[in-house]
Amino acid sequence: MKPRIAVSIGDLNGIGAAIALLAHKALCEKCTPLYCISDQMLEQASALLRMERPPDFSTVAVGTPFEIAPGVVSADSGRYAYESFLKAIEMAENGDADAVVTLPIHKEAWAKAGLHYVGHTDLLREHFKAEAIMMLGCSKMYVALYTEHIPLASVPEAIDERKLTQFLLDLHRETGADKIGVLGLNPHAGDNGVLGSEERIIERAIEGANGTVGKPVFEGPLVPDIAFTPHTRKQYTHYAAMYHDQGLAPLKALYFDESINVSLNLPVIRTSVDHGTAFDIAYSRLPSTRSYLNAADEALRLIALRRHRAISSSVF
Amino acid sequence: MKPRIAVSIGDLNGIGAAIALLAHKALCEKCTPLYCISDQMLEQASALLRMERPPDFSTVAVGTPFEIAPGVVSADSGRYAYESFLKAIEMAENGDADAVVTLPIHKEAWAKAGLHYVGHTDLLREHFKAEAIMMLGCSKMYVALYTEHIPLASVPEAIDERKLTQFLLDLHRETGADKIGVLGLNPHAGDNGVLGSEERIIERAIEGANGTVGKPVFEGPLVPDIAFTPHTRKQYTHYAAMYHDQGLAPLKALYFDESINVSLNLPVIRTSVDHGTAFDIAYSRLPSTRSYLNAADEALRLIALRRHRAISSSVF
Repeated sequence: MKPRIAVSIGDLNGIGAAIALLAHKALCEKCTPLYCISDQMLEQASALLRMERPPDFSTVAVGTPFEIAPGVVSADSGRYAYESFLKAIEMAENGDADAVVTLPIHKEAWAKAGLHYVGHTDLLREHFKAEAIMMLGCSKMYVALYTEHIPLASVPEAIDERKLTQFLLDLHRETGADKIGVLGLNPHAGDNGVLGSEERIIERAIEGANGTVGKPVFEGPLVPDIAFTPHTRKQYTHYAAMYHDQGLAPLKALYFDESINVSLNLPVIRTSVDHGTAFDIAYSRLPSTRSYLNAADEALRLIALRRHRAISSSVF
Repeated sequence: MKPRIAVSIGDLNGIGAAIALLAHKALCEKCTPLYCISDQMLEQASALLRMERPPDFSTVAVGTPFEIAPGVVSADSGRYAYESFLKAIEMAENGDADAVVTLPIHKEAWAKAGLHYVGHTDLLREHFKAEAIMMLGCSKMYVALYTEHIPLASVPEAIDERKLTQFLLDLHRETGADKIGVLGLNPHAGDNGVLGSEERIIERAIEGANGTVGKPVFEGPLVPDIAFTPHTRKQYTHYAAMYHDQGLAPLKALYFDESINVSLNLPVIRTSVDHGTAFDIAYSRLPSTRSYLNAADEALRLIALRRHRAISSSVF
């Protein structure tokens, strides 16, 4: 049986429905998509888009119908996106889907709907009460963030040996990566302590994690400014970044269009496009489906990895 | 008269001499290079490289001769590189050259020679008692560093309105750039203060600098992780980064091979290759001259800019 992917439709005032319709055929070649959108809302969106609903487009009813207003930040649309996401999570939890792929929501629309989450990952953390790992990238380069949405001034004190060791171990288990480049924090990775001392902590976490795994999976602390040169990128597909912009600025400089967002370390598999609702082109210009299809590919890879792990652990 | 460029030869146990010899012909088409190396040392290097000294290769005697030891960190070679650099600066100060282009030195060789400077820029700051600005990049993208070699933990407190305003004004005057993208400090540029408040200071510095210049040259604070996407790069050739890795990691991810290092805000013009001594290939494999020739091009651009400014200020 093909893997089943629950697709949360995102903010319907944005480009989510267009992406789902445009990419449907390509997606069906890899998996069985189950779209968390009611027939009524789908009909409305496809009429606005002047696109026909494909006959094998399986919907799962969710939410309260509303009138789509292209490009408008609205409480109705925010709430619908939330309900679609909750349904997709529920399907994955119940075993009705093997993974969740999310289309973009609008943060302000969520706020208007009275939802306090910063985004999908934040909701997942709260829902599962688990330390979700946020990883972004594409098959050429993935970056996992040890710290995310905190002020830069709070980053150095957040470098903690025990937490970082656990983060590295979780990242390795979840991605199956053979080799992970772990970034230093300071310029020149501290230059032997002259430019900061957090690299000592990072070194100990690397040693500890390698010890637990039993092989030298983790390498570093890498000198941050040369960690993403063409030469170094040949050595790593996966990086652990100490803070948000350290990993994401080089990633987006190199692979902006194809990047996706992955939530690791959760009971369910969830991947996502790494772009926004693009209200400026919603229902007027056709969006790119590249990030979405990449997100589905990564979900499929993670499904296969979990199945393999389940088989391995039942055999040994 | 062609502009004259004083070339400091760098660490002679590294790739400096090979680059100077390889690029000589190309360089002569643009300027008159004056090489700060004695005939004796040049003879030794060219014999080791099995390359002939071109007849129009003008040398300027410096330093104490020593025996070249390819790939070896040595006090002799460190001291020679230092003396070559001092001579080049002296020539620019005296008007015997219009700019200085530097080949790479080895920091540890300088330390062995009893020299305490972190590098060229550090020495220039001390020599001229001036706030040199370190800018790296290539014609497609330049990044100037507001803070450089300090621990990441010290960066937030270094964001100072008066100093940053002055930095921006100096950067504009020295580069002649019409538009400069100024980066925020925090993820999402602070997300309206939720993820840090330094962006308020950066905003005020931008406003102040734009006010002084009398036009909106400075834009920002830019959201750091999307400041270097292909789309944003179409808008800026010059960026002001708040810290070392914020600017250099994206730059080196994109343009590692062609980047150069420029010292701005000094009485003399100085540009440099942005690579090291490459001891591993010294006198065995031929190095790339790309960064060196780009450094010469930028020196020539800056010479022209200063001449233009001198003419403008004498006219008005």
